[in-house]
This record gives sequence, C-alpha cells and structure tokens, in this order.
Amino acid sequence: MQQTPGFVATVRNEAPLISCITNIVTANFVTNVLLALQCAPSVTNTVGQDVITSAKTVDGLLVNLGMAQPENSEQRQNLLALTAAAKAADTPWTLDPVAVGSTPARTWLATELLEHSPTVIRGNASEIMALAGTGQGGKGVESLDSPEQAEQTAHQLAQQVPCVVSVSGASDLITDGTNIVRVGYGDPLLTRITGGGCALGGTVTAFCAVRGDRSVLEATVAAHMAYGVAAERAGRLAAGPGTFVPHFLDSLARLQDADLPTDAAGIEARP
Amino acid sequence: MQQTPGFVATVRNEAPLISCITNIVTANFVTNVLLALQCAPSVTNTVGQDVITSAKTVDGLLVNLGMAQPENSEQRQNLLALTAAAKAADTPWTLDPVAVGSTPARTWLATELLEHSPTVIRGNASEIMALAGTGQGGKGVESLDSPEQAEQTAHQLAQQVPCVVSVSGASDLITDGTNIVRVGYGDPLLTRITGGGCALGGTVTAFCAVRGDRSVLEATVAAHMAYGVAAERAGRLAAGPGTFVPHFLDSLARLQDADLPTDAAGIEARP
Amino acid sequence: MQQTPGFVATVRNEAPLISCITNIVTANFVTNVLLALQCAPSVTNTVGQDVITSAKTVDGLLVNLGMAQPENSEQRQNLLALTAAAKAADTPWTLDPVAVGSTPARTWLATELLEHSPTVIRGNASEIMALAGTGQGGKGVESLDSPEQAEQTAHQLAQQVPCVVSVSGASDLITDGTNIVRVGYGDPLLTRITGGGCALGGTVTAFCAVRGDRSVLEATVAAHMAYGVAAERAGRLAAGPGTFVPHFLDSLARLQDADLPTDAAGIEARP
Repeated sequence: MQQTPGFVATVRNEAPLISCITNIVTANFVTNVLLALQCAPSVTNTVGQDVITSAKTVDGLLVNLGMAQPENSEQRQNLLALTAAAKAADTPWTLDPVAVGSTPARTWLATELLEHSPTVIRGNASEIMALAGTGQGGKGVESLDSPEQAEQTAHQLAQQVPCVVSVSGASDLITDGTNIVRVGYGDPLLTRITGGGCALGGTVTAFCAVRGDRSVLEATVAAHMAYGVAAERAGRLAAGPGTFVPHFLDSLARLQDADLPTDAAGIEARP
Repeated sequence: MQQTPGFVATVRNEAPLISCITNIVTANFVTNVLLALQCAPSVTNTVGQDVITSAKTVDGLLVNLGMAQPENSEQRQNLLALTAAAKAADTPWTLDPVAVGSTPARTWLATELLEHSPTVIRGNASEIMALAGTGQGGKGVESLDSPEQAEQTAHQLAQQVPCVVSVSGASDLITDGTNIVRVGYGDPLLTRITGGGCALGGTVTAFCAVRGDRSVLEATVAAHMAYGVAAERAGRLAAGPGTFVPHFLDSLARLQDADLPTDAAGIEARP
Repeated sequence: MQQTPGFVATVRNEAPLISCITNIVTANFVTNVLLALQCAPSVTNTVGQDVITSAKTVDGLLVNLGMAQPENSEQRQNLLALTAAAKAADTPWTLDPVAVGSTPARTWLATELLEHSPTVIRGNASEIMALAGTGQGGKGVESLDSPEQAEQTAHQLAQQVPCVVSVSGASDLITDGTNIVRVGYGDPLLTRITGGGCALGGTVTAFCAVRGDRSVLEATVAAHMAYGVAAERAGRLAAGPGTFVPHFLDSLARLQDADLPTDAAGIEARP
C-alpha cells in the first residue's frame, strides 16, 4: 500500500459536490462533517426526480439505508433509479447498508442495489455479513460482530461486486478483494454519538470523488485515516460524547495531509 | 417513595433497544441523549411496516406526536397499529402528546392512542390538560400552564388510562393515580434548546424498559432525577443554550446512580 | 437609514410564534437559533393542513425551499396554499429560495410563490439571480456569485414583487427597491456549518413579526446586524466550525440591542 499524500488538500481545493441520501437523525452531522472538510454537500432523505437527475452531475453519491422503508415500493424504485443513474454516469457512490439483516425486505433492497456497482460498501461487521448472506445482522444499528469476524466475507464481497468493502470497528478493515488494509485510528466516542458511521461514509465518498488516478482503495484508506486521526485529536479534548462532536468538526477542518501517518503505523497491508 | 438505586447502571448494562418516533427537529438530540446513556436507539419520523413489526422486539417505544400530521389517515392508522403492537407485546411505551390542543385532529389522534395503554404519558401542563379535555393547549409547543395547575387532571388521567403521567415544568410532577411525586431538578436552559422534553421522554422509556420488578412510577421518577441532575451540572458549565447541549450529553454519559439524591431532597411523595 | 433600537428586546418580550418550513438538515439549528432569541418556533418539513391553517395564527412564517421536491404536485399545491393563507392573513413571511436555478421545476415553484407576496426574500447571490431570471444558480446550495453582482437584480426584484430582498455574502446587501443597505458583520465560519443562511431567514422572520410601526427594511437590517454581530463574537471564541455553533447560540442568547452598531459602521445606506 503506497503512502496516500494530498487527499485532504485535494478535497479542499476541489470542494466536490457530494449528494447524500441519509436519515433525519444524522443528516445534520453528515452535512457538517462534509462542510468541515470543505465539500459542497447536498443532503436529503427523499429521493425525488431532481435527486436522480443530479446523479449525473454531482462528484459523488452516498446512499445510507438508514432512511429506507424497504416496503415502500416507490422509494425502492427511486433508490434503484438513483444508483442506476450514478452507475451510468460513472459517478462514484458509496453504499452504507444500515441495519441490513434486521428485516428480509431491507436485506433484499440492499442486495438489489449491489447490481448497480457501488464504488465502496461501508458498514459495520454485522451489516457486511448480513449483506453477504453470512450473518443475521446486528442489534438495531449496532454491530454484534467484529471486523475480524467479517474479514473473509468482506474479501469475497469485494471480489464479487466488485468494489472496495470497508468494515468499521475498533480497528477498521478495508479490502478491494486483493489487498486487505487495517486502519487502527479512531476514538470510542465515535460510537457514542449518532452519525459516526454515516459521516465516515460521506468522507469516503468525498475522497473517492477527488481520487483522480489513485485507486479507490487508496482513497478509502486515506478517508478512514483522516477521519480516525481527527477523531483521536477530538477525543483528547473532549470530556464526553457531547463535547466530542464540536471538537471533531474543528479537528477535521484543521486537518492537514501531513497529519496522516506515512509509515506502517496503524496500517497493515496484506496482499 | 423508595430510593431508586441502580437505574443508571442497569441502563448501561442492558443497553436497551429503544425505538423512537419523533420529528426532524429533535431526532438528532434524542438519539444522542440515548447514546450518552448507552442505549441502542432507533429513531424515525415515518412509521412503516418494519417499525410496526419491530414493536414486538424492541425494549421500549417512544411515540412523540411532534412528527404527526393528524389529518393524514395512513399515518394515523400506522401510529395506531404501532401502539397496538406495543400493547399486545407488552412493550413499555411512552406517549409524548406534543402540541395536543392546537387542533381538534391532533387532540383526537392522541386520545385514540390512549386506548392502547401507554405505560407513561409525558408532556407539559398545557398538553396534559388538553389531552384530558380540561384545557385548550399551549402556544405551539410551549406550555401556558404550570404543573401545579395540571395536578388534578394528571391524577385523574393516570387513574383513567391507567398509566403514569408526568408533567414537566419548573418542578416536574409525576403520578400513578395514587402517589404524586415532585422532582425539582433541572435547568432553565432545557427550555431554551429544542428536544429537551422529547429526550426526557426517551430517557423515561429507557428506564421503564429496564425496570424489572420495580414500578413504572419508580422508573419514571428515577429518569426525571437523572435527567434533571445531569442538566443542573451542565447548567453550571454552560455559558448559554449552545454550550449547554454538549455539556449535558457529557454529563449524562458520566452520571452514576450515586449522583442521584437518595433522601427527600427534591422529591416529595404524597400518598 | 435610521438606528433600529429595541428589536432584540422586542423579540424577547413578545416571543413570537414562528412557523418554519425547512429541511431535515437544518431544522435543529434553525429551531435552536429561534429559541436562543427566545421565540416560540414550530418547525417542519411537511406542509399538511394543520400547518396551512396555522398560517393565520402564527406571527411569522419562513418558507425554505431546501425541503422542496418541486416535481411533487401535492407538495407544490400545499406550499402555494400555505403562502396564500399567509398573504390573506397578512402574516409576514420570508422566502428562502434554496438552490433555485438548479432545476427548472425548482425555479418555477419559487417563481409561483412570488405571487403570494413574500415580505422578504433572503438568499445568496446565485439564488436571487436565478429567481429573477438573470443567472443560472449556484453549485448546489453554494453561491458562485457575489452580492455585488446581484445588486441590480435584487433592486429590481424588490420593486417588482414588491418586497425586501436580502442577498447574503461576505457583506450582505438588503434593499426594498428604493434604499440599498449593506451590512458587513458576520464570520466566515457561518459558511462552514449547515443552516447558517436558513437560520438567518428565521431571524429575519422573527424581527419582521415584531416590527410594529417600523419598516420591513429596518427589521431585516436589524436582523442581519444582530445575527452578524453574534457570529463575530462566536468566531472569536471558536477554534473551528464545530465549536462555532454552540458559541453562536450562546452569543445570540446574550445579545442586547446596545451591542448592535448605531452609527454608519458596517452599514451604508444608499437612496
């Protein structure tokens, strides 16, 4: 795995237009994370025709299934039309399979979306395993499995789709089906606030949107590193989950590429 | 009223799955309050079939009518189906009758929901009085009446449903139709941020979900005490409503059962 | 332009009931800004019959098109019914034409709403120019034009509707079609958080709601000054966009009319 310099600066210079489909709970935080990184986010929980049309012109798309009512057939069709448009336009898009495994309809919807070639799938271990049919899902939106338990599944899913699969946990696991990279940065407080995973999905999307000649794996690893390093800094300043949020946003806004590790510390590549 | 030891620790150990129906304004704060207490919240403003189905498996349910469009008949039916499912499954559920009294349709919807045996009704004085048919409602979501003015009404409503009724105000009044308990903790800044009442409803639901052999009254009183004590601590650190929010979440995350009063200070029980 | 004393105190004394139609991203922040100013806000992203009915009784209305799906004909009709009701009842209302210019349907909807006599139109330069048919819109919700570029357009739009038009930017430009006022307060961090413009729309609405004999132009200028001065204070305390938000809300809650400039500093009136 090569060093990944310049992603933070590239995001700031290009200010990519990132369209995010997410839910009412995390929309504000996801937007503020993307603004702190200096992106131009456009966030909604309702996929109408204008959102589908914009899939051609935005620089990246995040589809977070936290908003989904999988039994709603109009919504299901709109999500399929949206991701089909992103695929057709070659717009990088990230699937965040929130709570997949909790109901058959939800798992089925997420599986259908896989046909539209997500660039990255980012979820917790229980979600990734449920999506691949090797697990039963988590407790609501919480994972009951560790990234290590999902390693084999993630690897196969990445080959099958094909795409990059990122499994969040105490240490994140990221794979393109060939390499497996672990990123050990972050702070436990990220699990005590809502939107920690969703906003990581937004960050991954932004980094993929500006990756240029670099690989999706590099962009995804850099996004996880940037997010994790910013979280560690915020964790040192915070007295709990409440003060963590403002410090984290400040920390993202001040982050420099030089702050990201350039050696193997925190990263292990395994061919 | 007996001392209520252990509720905070029990919530942390059991991490109850709390389903919340609330609105776009307070969803983020309600979720973060429940996460600070170490619950597993699942929050939405749209009651679809998956939410109704989950009423059997979650540990507690909050129905906050802030999200309701009472004229929408599909939504009304879904709210009725949801609360019927909670009743059938014996899942504790809290009704937060936001802005009841403001329109006849809203009052009528809330009254219908009473048939499905809420475990706790938590509202401000104007809402409780409007729900019981003894008042005209408040100014938007603000109360025009004091808990003292609602005392007789709350007592009767608790007997009628039957359930525990909690009336929020400068000093909160909680009754199971036999005992009346007053909890005098809190901070005025809770009224200068949005979601202060909604998130208290979530806290009450979480405490009821883990109450075991303890009564609903005990659980509700303990929730009000925990919330109020955390608010007082946050109020001492805050310079206004903006800094109050992060300090309050930190304060909830650090709260111990030993921080809750064990003598009569702040509580008056009246048989 | 005369000095505008007393607006901050008047808002606090009258606690106007402000109904806001906005989106899931900014709803929480808009509500907390209005609560910090001691208004009674009622915020939703869904215009049902109860919201339309309430247009007669509220003190002010904000319509932020961030929530709009312009292709949804029921929603379009409800927005038209809502603003017609506000016009009929002489309730002051503010139009925030978010992302107008991005699609023809959105521009058309905003243009239709102009027929219902908004009291104030508040947007960024690209939105104002697209609304008046002299520009192509911005990049998502970001402006690609400066208030200076929109000056002529804003002036004409104010005469045509007629209404007050406010163009936000590094220095805000406000006109009633006769006078042009510039307000040079604010902080760049307002553009690095979501809802900075939406909440300014809410503040303008609140100030217009309590203006009494004062002109809409005076109320709008005072709102921009109050908002900008509070932002400057918060900017001095903040270490980034994350800590800016709580400091800004504290700052609004502590603001006094004496804090607002009474001389020409920061204001230029041009007849």
